[in-house]
Amino acid sequence: MTNNRLDRLSDSLGHSFRQEGLLRQALTHRSYGAQHNERLEFLGDSVLNCTIAKALYDAFPNLPEGTLSRMRANLVKQDTLAEIAVRLKLGDYMLLGEGELKSGGFRRPSMLADALESIIGAVFLDAGFEAAQAAVLRQFESAIANIDPNVSGKDAKTRLQEWLQARKHALPDYQLSGTRGEAHDQIFVVACHIPALDIAAQGQGKSRRAAEQEAALAVLKQVGEIR
Amino acid sequence: MTNNRLDRLSDSLGHSFRQEGLLRQALTHRSYGAQHNERLEFLGDSVLNCTIAKALYDAFPNLPEGTLSRMRANLVKQDTLAEIAVRLKLGDYMLLGEGELKSGGFRRPSMLADALESIIGAVFLDAGFEAAQAAVLRQFESAIANIDPNVSGKDAKTRLQEWLQARKHALPDYQLSGTRGEAHDQIFVVACHIPALDIAAQGQGKSRRAAEQEAALAVLKQVGEIR
Repeated sequence: MTNNRLDRLSDSLGHSFRQEGLLRQALTHRSYGAQHNERLEFLGDSVLNCTIAKALYDAFPNLPEGTLSRMRANLVKQDTLAEIAVRLKLGDYMLLGEGELKSGGFRRPSMLADALESIIGAVFLDAGFEAAQAAVLRQFESAIANIDPNVSGKDAKTRLQEWLQARKHALPDYQLSGTRGEAHDQIFVVACHIPALDIAAQGQGKSRRAAEQEAALAVLKQVGEIR
Repeated sequence: MTNNRLDRLSDSLGHSFRQEGLLRQALTHRSYGAQHNERLEFLGDSVLNCTIAKALYDAFPNLPEGTLSRMRANLVKQDTLAEIAVRLKLGDYMLLGEGELKSGGFRRPSMLADALESIIGAVFLDAGFEAAQAAVLRQFESAIANIDPNVSGKDAKTRLQEWLQARKHALPDYQLSGTRGEAHDQIFVVACHIPALDIAAQGQGKSRRAAEQEAALAVLKQVGEIR
């Protein structure tokens, strides 16, 4: 990893590291060596939660704590973090052991999300809370600006239920249609049926709950409630 | 609430509020009025998690993230927060609605813990992260100094189970012996029996789980595993 390349990452982060070793460590997966990023991730996760809490607190002075909490959960979830990590091309910078390299670990959302949290922890150690806060806001600015308190905090099943209730329709019916794959790596398939409208859609996921959410999402799309 | 009284609390906190309204809001339960402390609690909870994460990160440079995470959970759990709140006499300062006052809400651990988190959030808004960090460390200093990474992360039931397994004894048997008090304020009494050693002890708590933990703790004391 040349300094030149790390400079490019520093530019995107908007933070120039005094202690470049911290950035390197943040990018090091445990499969690569002892100086890996897991402790930084622990720290960064808490900094991320705190900075997002503050940003939402300021941005939505009239929302109750429960809504803020749901909105934050939505912003700091793995998918969102992995998206930002992809935008920052973190996968290109990560140091992985050979096995992880071969299996494409640098593309795995969990690994990318962890690396992003680790980097936030590294900025915090390098230059303090406000520097970390600035780095977080730089990445999350548009996500926070675009967040809709009425929907973003709510998962698809909740949204679908509310949509149906507002129309005085009966609640959806979720049924497990089947499972695929081996025991340790099963995929669940769930059908969501809306009796009142006679529509149905399927969803799949690594848990029954995840599959139900996907199915609810598919129905919300069918009825034109989301794109 | 006279300023004099709030001054005493500020002294114990080691933080003198520029915006005293924030402190007042942090001490206001939702039963008292619209300007209550729930949003501050949301913020303070995240500041607390972050400052404790940093303190543990610094204090234990060689511990893995999982252990740090368990240690933190132990430090920021409701009981610990309520203890600190009692030390700060937060119950004396809280503003509660009449119903909560009559039912002794100012003594309820959950309400005290929430008020402490709210105050941390208020310090953060009043003077920034480092001021909040200093206030948190002032209260948690001895708890962090006395923490034992080998035990502190584990709850009493886990410790008892491990102690028994190390001696190849059968697992403990927990039985609900009864409940006391009215429905909304029940106390559960649980007996923990160790067949192999023919010893037993009781524990009580506001939930069955809490009572089991207390019972396990009592057994650990009986066998001399803790003081």
